[in-house]
Amino acid sequence: MPPPEAVVDLLGALAYGELSAFDHLADDAGLAPTLAGRAQMSAMAAIEFGHYARIAERLEKLGTPAEVAMAPFVAALESYHALTEPSTWLESVVKAYVGDGMAADFYREVAAFVDPDTGALMREVLEDTGRAEFAVREVEAAIAAAPEIAGRLALWARRLVGEAISQTQHVLADRDSLTTLLVEGAGDLTGIAALITRITDRHAERMVALGLAS
Amino acid sequence: MPPPEAVVDLLGALAYGELSAFDHLADDAGLAPTLAGRAQMSAMAAIEFGHYARIAERLEKLGTPAEVAMAPFVAALESYHALTEPSTWLESVVKAYVGDGMAADFYREVAAFVDPDTGALMREVLEDTGRAEFAVREVEAAIAAAPEIAGRLALWARRLVGEAISQTQHVLADRDSLTTLLVEGAGDLTGIAALITRITDRHAERMVALGLAS
Repeated sequence: MPPPEAVVDLLGALAYGELSAFDHLADDAGLAPTLAGRAQMSAMAAIEFGHYARIAERLEKLGTPAEVAMAPFVAALESYHALTEPSTWLESVVKAYVGDGMAADFYREVAAFVDPDTGALMREVLEDTGRAEFAVREVEAAIAAAPEIAGRLALWARRLVGEAISQTQHVLADRDSLTTLLVEGAGDLTGIAALITRITDRHAERMVALGLAS
Repeated sequence: MPPPEAVVDLLGALAYGELSAFDHLADDAGLAPTLAGRAQMSAMAAIEFGHYARIAERLEKLGTPAEVAMAPFVAALESYHALTEPSTWLESVVKAYVGDGMAADFYREVAAFVDPDTGALMREVLEDTGRAEFAVREVEAAIAAAPEIAGRLALWARRLVGEAISQTQHVLADRDSLTTLLVEGAGDLTGIAALITRITDRHAERMVALGLAS
């Protein structure tokens, strides 16, 4: 079992991930071309907040207020969001699916390395909830209407992945507890390589679903 | 019983009120001086979205998509928010309590004029959910630390009320169905005057609770 501080760190990072996702999805909803699209992205934001609340509750039970557990991860997540601020509705849709999807895959992998209760909570709050269908529908319709945007969106998705990896590296360099959790959980470097391959594969599947080159 | 179009108008106005409250509370959460305050205001936003979803569902059942029912009320509500954009955390807290509280009182009054099912739904989504305690705590602490801000916040609350009344008048002037609903529901001008007095009294109570002059 990983030491308690690693679990608190992990839940703190995930909690702030959810709270900042709420914040940015709520913001990005303002880019929607229709009230229906705005309501759908607002719904995703509200779901993220519900997830945040579940994790905050668990952190309280573990004896650490959520704001204390989240504090070390605020800078990295806000950097990610500042560097990937969508300037169009489609960019926000791709970010909500590709960026958040990749983060969820990463946390789902790490969920296997913690105690069963924490792992179950993590898998529960990482559930997709219809985001895939929504993103695929919006992007497909947009590409059908203007095929030339596919190239730009593919570049955008690559940028999301690049910034996500870069901020994850910052966090791991900064938090020994999480690096240890990851390395011990994966077993060895081969295990880590396999984990990264699985995440990359799932990312490629999402890009295919969107009709974008990865 | 009011005609169905009045009910659709009323639910449309309320639905957009909730959706735009979600949007602006989520935004204002960024003004919070602490992560805990930010999480609390984000929680209010998520609750508003849940209310929006309940009303949207009812509108669908009545055969009108929410985005169609909301469309006539977007301009007035966005004007209200544009004219009352908080520039400090305390202004956002007062707005969430005083502004939204007054709107809720208005809708609760009108809930008495529609069919019991619609009325019950309205009362359900208008429930306070701890906002009062939150606002009182934040404002009391701030005034204790810096008594001179009380005057500025009292002025701010008056501005909120002024803009809310002005936008409500625009909406009523524009939507005969709602004016008729209000006048027939209240019975006559004496009934309307009594309704306005009740709303004003409740507003004054909130101001007293905050320690502000109304």
